[in-house]
Amino acid sequence: MQRIAIAPNQIDNNYIALTPEQCHYLTRVIRLQNGAQFQAIDGTGKLYLAALEIDRFQQHSSSGNARIISTLNNEIDVLANRELSPAITLICALPKGNNFDDIVRACTELGVTTIYPAISDRTLLVPSPQKLQRWRKIAQEAAEQSERLTIPIIEESQPLETIFSQLPASIGNANRYWCEARGDRPHLLECLQSKIPITDWVTIAIGPEGGWTPSEIDRAIEYDFQLVSLGRQILRTITAPIVALSIVSAVTGTNTRPQVLI
Amino acid sequence: MQRIAIAPNQIDNNYIALTPEQCHYLTRVIRLQNGAQFQAIDGTGKLYLAALEIDRFQQHSSSGNARIISTLNNEIDVLANRELSPAITLICALPKGNNFDDIVRACTELGVTTIYPAISDRTLLVPSPQKLQRWRKIAQEAAEQSERLTIPIIEESQPLETIFSQLPASIGNANRYWCEARGDRPHLLECLQSKIPITDWVTIAIGPEGGWTPSEIDRAIEYDFQLVSLGRQILRTITAPIVALSIVSAVTGTNTRPQVLI
Repeated sequence: MQRIAIAPNQIDNNYIALTPEQCHYLTRVIRLQNGAQFQAIDGTGKLYLAALEIDRFQQHSSSGNARIISTLNNEIDVLANRELSPAITLICALPKGNNFDDIVRACTELGVTTIYPAISDRTLLVPSPQKLQRWRKIAQEAAEQSERLTIPIIEESQPLETIFSQLPASIGNANRYWCEARGDRPHLLECLQSKIPITDWVTIAIGPEGGWTPSEIDRAIEYDFQLVSLGRQILRTITAPIVALSIVSAVTGTNTRPQVLI
Repeated sequence: MQRIAIAPNQIDNNYIALTPEQCHYLTRVIRLQNGAQFQAIDGTGKLYLAALEIDRFQQHSSSGNARIISTLNNEIDVLANRELSPAITLICALPKGNNFDDIVRACTELGVTTIYPAISDRTLLVPSPQKLQRWRKIAQEAAEQSERLTIPIIEESQPLETIFSQLPASIGNANRYWCEARGDRPHLLECLQSKIPITDWVTIAIGPEGGWTPSEIDRAIEYDFQLVSLGRQILRTITAPIVALSIVSAVTGTNTRPQVLI
């Protein structure tokens, strides 16, 4: 069944007030008929089953409603839950070009909770405000496609120091990992598995082309980040966050003490 | 220092006979002067330090040689070794569009040894012969950029059954993993870690959009593949191989029994 993302404030009195864009998508792109059912996620973890109600005279006016038939949260079983537990924050230095699009898309699939696009000492281009809107749209679409119930929060691009000061105190600092290329650091996999079962929020930081500067690394240590490696491979900035999230997802998805065969 | 990939048969009597393309790259693109040094990998694990020797009268003829100064293999320390041990074979069903380009690029970074592009029951398009050349060029460039000494072998696109019959007997069958979406299978991470230390060749198979057909899964089991999961997330065909390789790379890179803290 088709699933779309809505904003929580689109819901009023058991009806979803569809935006013109959503209306167009439902009636023209996937050609749902009046009364046809679809699913809607509000991005905060709620899933609704809804029926399209387009007034005949509104067919061409690009507006319409959907009646909420039920909330489906109780029907989501463990296997169909795509969310990671604990939540994952990704701090990612902005790469060159449009590569951040792919990072947002893949990390959303992998279950990231919040992404901070970071302006680091070696970031070459500060993105335009339009980029943020684009990334949020990509996150929304990727969340729909990968059947997630929550849409990752994409924060505004900010200098690293501002991000440090904004990391919520409630996140805790036991699972803050600072990925460093070419260093002789313990592997992220080992660090995470030494802390199983992981209950605290996990924060991962990935550097730009050229890596972090020494002063950035010093500041990260002051903010309780542990320096880790993603292995001996030389990864592009676009690949590194996907690798890190793959490892976090694998460890939290198998969040039990590893078996040791004697 | 700049590094290029050469074919083993370009080496003759301590000289590298450069192709016109390599000559153009070295003299025009990165503008090396006569006598300047660069590194060359032959794709089989050998690394050479070489000096450019372009005859003055050949400057515009797009041909030239490089004198081999030394082989550097002894100077590659453990940290600079980007190769995975054991070797990794990826069988990957062909996705739609040009997505296989990105899979080849990222998996080369992550250390893959051999890639089999697989024509599965649900593969929609059989690629043109030009695609294979393109993928091999991408693998070569990605190997250069990620400082690998070996260039992954990209096999021709073949039906799954042909690939099964071609898997070398020497590869062993203890570490064959068949990734299945939406199934309740053990996680690849758990399966790999239960076999640490891993010494046998690892083979990973990733399905197409729409997944494997039941008969393909039956055949895989007959060929000693173990059915595994990459987690509860719904991954695109382009993301899944990167996730699988990330996990293999992490486990083989930390190829020791996991610590259990009492």
